[in-house]
Amino acid sequence: MAKQKKPQRPKARRPRGFEDRPANILRAEWRLVQSAYAVYDSYGFEPLQTPAFEFADVLGKFLPDEDRPNTGVFALRDDDEQWLSLRYDLTAPLARYVAENFDALAKPFRRYQSGSVYRNEKPGPGRFREFVQCDADSVGAASSAADAEMIMIAADVMKAAGLTDGQYAIRVNNRKLLDGILEQSGVPNTDAGAEQRLKVLRAIDKLDRLGEDGVEALLGEGRKDDSGDYTEGAKLSASGIKAVLGFTVASDPDRGKTIANLEKLVGQSGRGNEGCQELTDIDALLNATGFGPDRVGFDTSIVRGLGYYTGPVFEAELLADIKDKKGRPVRIGSIGGGGRYDDLVSRFRGQPVPATGFSFGVSRFLSALERMDVMLSETQAPVMICAFDRNLMSEYFKMAAELRAHDIRAEVFVGSGNITKQMKYADRRGVKLAVLMGSDEYDAQTVTLKDLVLGAEMAKAISSNEEWKSSRPAQSTISRIDFVSEIKKALDA
Amino acid sequence: MAKQKKPQRPKARRPRGFEDRPANILRAEWRLVQSAYAVYDSYGFEPLQTPAFEFADVLGKFLPDEDRPNTGVFALRDDDEQWLSLRYDLTAPLARYVAENFDALAKPFRRYQSGSVYRNEKPGPGRFREFVQCDADSVGAASSAADAEMIMIAADVMKAAGLTDGQYAIRVNNRKLLDGILEQSGVPNTDAGAEQRLKVLRAIDKLDRLGEDGVEALLGEGRKDDSGDYTEGAKLSASGIKAVLGFTVASDPDRGKTIANLEKLVGQSGRGNEGCQELTDIDALLNATGFGPDRVGFDTSIVRGLGYYTGPVFEAELLADIKDKKGRPVRIGSIGGGGRYDDLVSRFRGQPVPATGFSFGVSRFLSALERMDVMLSETQAPVMICAFDRNLMSEYFKMAAELRAHDIRAEVFVGSGNITKQMKYADRRGVKLAVLMGSDEYDAQTVTLKDLVLGAEMAKAISSNEEWKSSRPAQSTISRIDFVSEIKKALDA
Repeated sequence: MAKQKKPQRPKARRPRGFEDRPANILRAEWRLVQSAYAVYDSYGFEPLQTPAFEFADVLGKFLPDEDRPNTGVFALRDDDEQWLSLRYDLTAPLARYVAENFDALAKPFRRYQSGSVYRNEKPGPGRFREFVQCDADSVGAASSAADAEMIMIAADVMKAAGLTDGQYAIRVNNRKLLDGILEQSGVPNTDAGAEQRLKVLRAIDKLDRLGEDGVEALLGEGRKDDSGDYTEGAKLSASGIKAVLGFTVASDPDRGKTIANLEKLVGQSGRGNEGCQELTDIDALLNATGFGPDRVGFDTSIVRGLGYYTGPVFEAELLADIKDKKGRPVRIGSIGGGGRYDDLVSRFRGQPVPATGFSFGVSRFLSALERMDVMLSETQAPVMICAFDRNLMSEYFKMAAELRAHDIRAEVFVGSGNITKQMKYADRRGVKLAVLMGSDEYDAQTVTLKDLVLGAEMAKAISSNEEWKSSRPAQSTISRIDFVSEIKKALDA
Repeated sequence: MAKQKKPQRPKARRPRGFEDRPANILRAEWRLVQSAYAVYDSYGFEPLQTPAFEFADVLGKFLPDEDRPNTGVFALRDDDEQWLSLRYDLTAPLARYVAENFDALAKPFRRYQSGSVYRNEKPGPGRFREFVQCDADSVGAASSAADAEMIMIAADVMKAAGLTDGQYAIRVNNRKLLDGILEQSGVPNTDAGAEQRLKVLRAIDKLDRLGEDGVEALLGEGRKDDSGDYTEGAKLSASGIKAVLGFTVASDPDRGKTIANLEKLVGQSGRGNEGCQELTDIDALLNATGFGPDRVGFDTSIVRGLGYYTGPVFEAELLADIKDKKGRPVRIGSIGGGGRYDDLVSRFRGQPVPATGFSFGVSRFLSALERMDVMLSETQAPVMICAFDRNLMSEYFKMAAELRAHDIRAEVFVGSGNITKQMKYADRRGVKLAVLMGSDEYDAQTVTLKDLVLGAEMAKAISSNEEWKSSRPAQSTISRIDFVSEIKKALDA
């Protein structure tokens, strides 16, 4: 007889950079996102959900110029040979949505959205290929009032997440200021100066890491790092370097003073003065609504990585004074931000469409909150009715239904295994209250209530097994008729 | 001078079968999903989110046997050449999750999940390539108590969605019954009989459309349809056909009577009697918890398309007696269902892992609810503070913040355009209350309140423009200091 071939079984595994999110993380994420949604709703924003796929050319930036599109996105060819890409953020799909429905939308169109975005990059600790972003954007409003609104929303989201004033700051800058200062230093405020401006932005972004000397080198001819690698500089003039360095330290805790400093720095630059006027307008609206300097500051060192910003930009920074397990201070830093991007919708329409927005990464924000011990309230584990006597399953189901009717989470153990196994299950599930009823108790119309949390604590304190058995701590017999109210009392205790 | 090349602009468009979901639809979906979540939570289930991508061989069914995997799924090759697929349902990823984390999970592992699934199929009306499913599953429990729980959950989700008893029914069957009846008729209850059993299931599924004669032909030699196409039959014996047809009409509104009928039909078949016993156990638990025959019935005509079910199966059916626009009766039918699938996790582990679940399509359920006029409550549009005088923007922002502090949605118009344009915006947004304040009013500390909904109604009733202008209906002047309480009153009215 031929030997029977062993069936090949697939191995249960996940692709790199894709994670499962279990209940405790997911519930915390939901609470965070719902808090943000409540803020967006209160400002009159409306939700939108765009699909996961977009045409590659619509997303832009990652156009398929060869057989396969550039890396960075997940892309595949549709059956009509067009390239489809999974969205890598929520802003590009929003721009497509607004352009596609332009005439039908009441403007400003103010929407919020959260959902998975996909990056086909090398995953690492805290870096995933699928992660959730949460965005609010306002399209069609050119005024600084729309920017002020986004900044206020960002501050209110921090508050709604459970942070107190002083634990966070929204730091606001304006791209036009640096444009103006560079214009004064001979960098033209046109496409011709774009590359030089980007180099300056990148240099400023390294201020924390390299210090003023390092940045000075990057603004000038260039810089050789410790490994010997050479980075070409922005090649500004000596006065240009001085002006840019002066700009990065122009901020003051007082927003009004910062504006006064900046007015001097931008001099006669039209674009620079526009930037100052916008900050002045934003300041007035923040003052009127009580967003003090403890919540929103003006900070000229804020850069924001993305090239597409055109005006006010801001970051939401967490400021907790906390230490890691080894006692070293933990820098929490930015968990989100945004700004004005007037060209993103325009690229579809060839006419100006102003836009401004705010975005944060949900798991990044959440892990920062956890490190700051800002814990969101937890969902109570269900009460567990043990399947002590299988002949009484109907009675157990009835008891669980009674608890649910009083808004108490409840489950009957529907798996297999004796009471020891059931207690292990309860322990792993974090169950606080277990209910036991055998046939004697059924006849007497009583139930036994076990407080598993209290029981575990007392078990530590009681030394002898004898003592434990005789006293049966954290266990009580209650009447079947008072069952729901006794459980309610025990849960509230 | 060379003529400047016109920049090529991308066209804002979506791939076929992918839809944007605007606020009204999205909010209704959220309410529906949140209602279902509340039910799952109350039974002690916990949420889980798995990623969008899985390895193709892990999802199974659609294995890449050539250069490209089979159609039906969206798949792409990862940089290490392994095929990744976007999930086409939430059950296959759950099976992978449980198999991957088997020892770490407390069992039964009872989770719920909703999220997008992807089908690379031809889209059509109501058929999308991305759509949202909402599932609850219980893995590791072999007992009928776990099935009863899923059935109760399905019924409670219908109720939580706003349906009243009588507007829906959960219809339960058991695959083992038909297995048993076919066994009696010479179809072996092994893999050898699998194809024949599937043909029988497909034939029964056509009872509504073809009637008893058509199904009889399909159970026997075969059937030629009106177009001349021939479908080969299951080739049952005459007594087998009689038994199967008798089975499909064995249900009674009384669950107990149905069981009695079935006990006669399955005769001595071990598998058939197992099926009867399971229904008996489920019936006892349903009776104990008050799930009467108006909510859950036993129905032997229920088939459920999927091949992987192994025991109890059920469908959630909507029963509204409604007519379409042309007065024809609308059949709403099944909006979801589920059942026991004991082999799905086992295929990874090579040992039995019992499982049972319930699933519904969110947009399918929602459109059914809409057709039945079961409307979920709507979110109130924000109060709009008009940007009447740009010099007063700070005051407008302050007023909006005051309203928000009292949990009233509010927005200042931050776009551009005069008051006529702003009123058009308010109208398109569904705004009920608009607030106007000019400099005179600011000096007098009053504001003008316009009820746009009432105004539109009255405009229909008032014939002359003169009369309209003189009476200014639906408009009132209120004191700035009473502003919030007056708005609250007007919104509640």
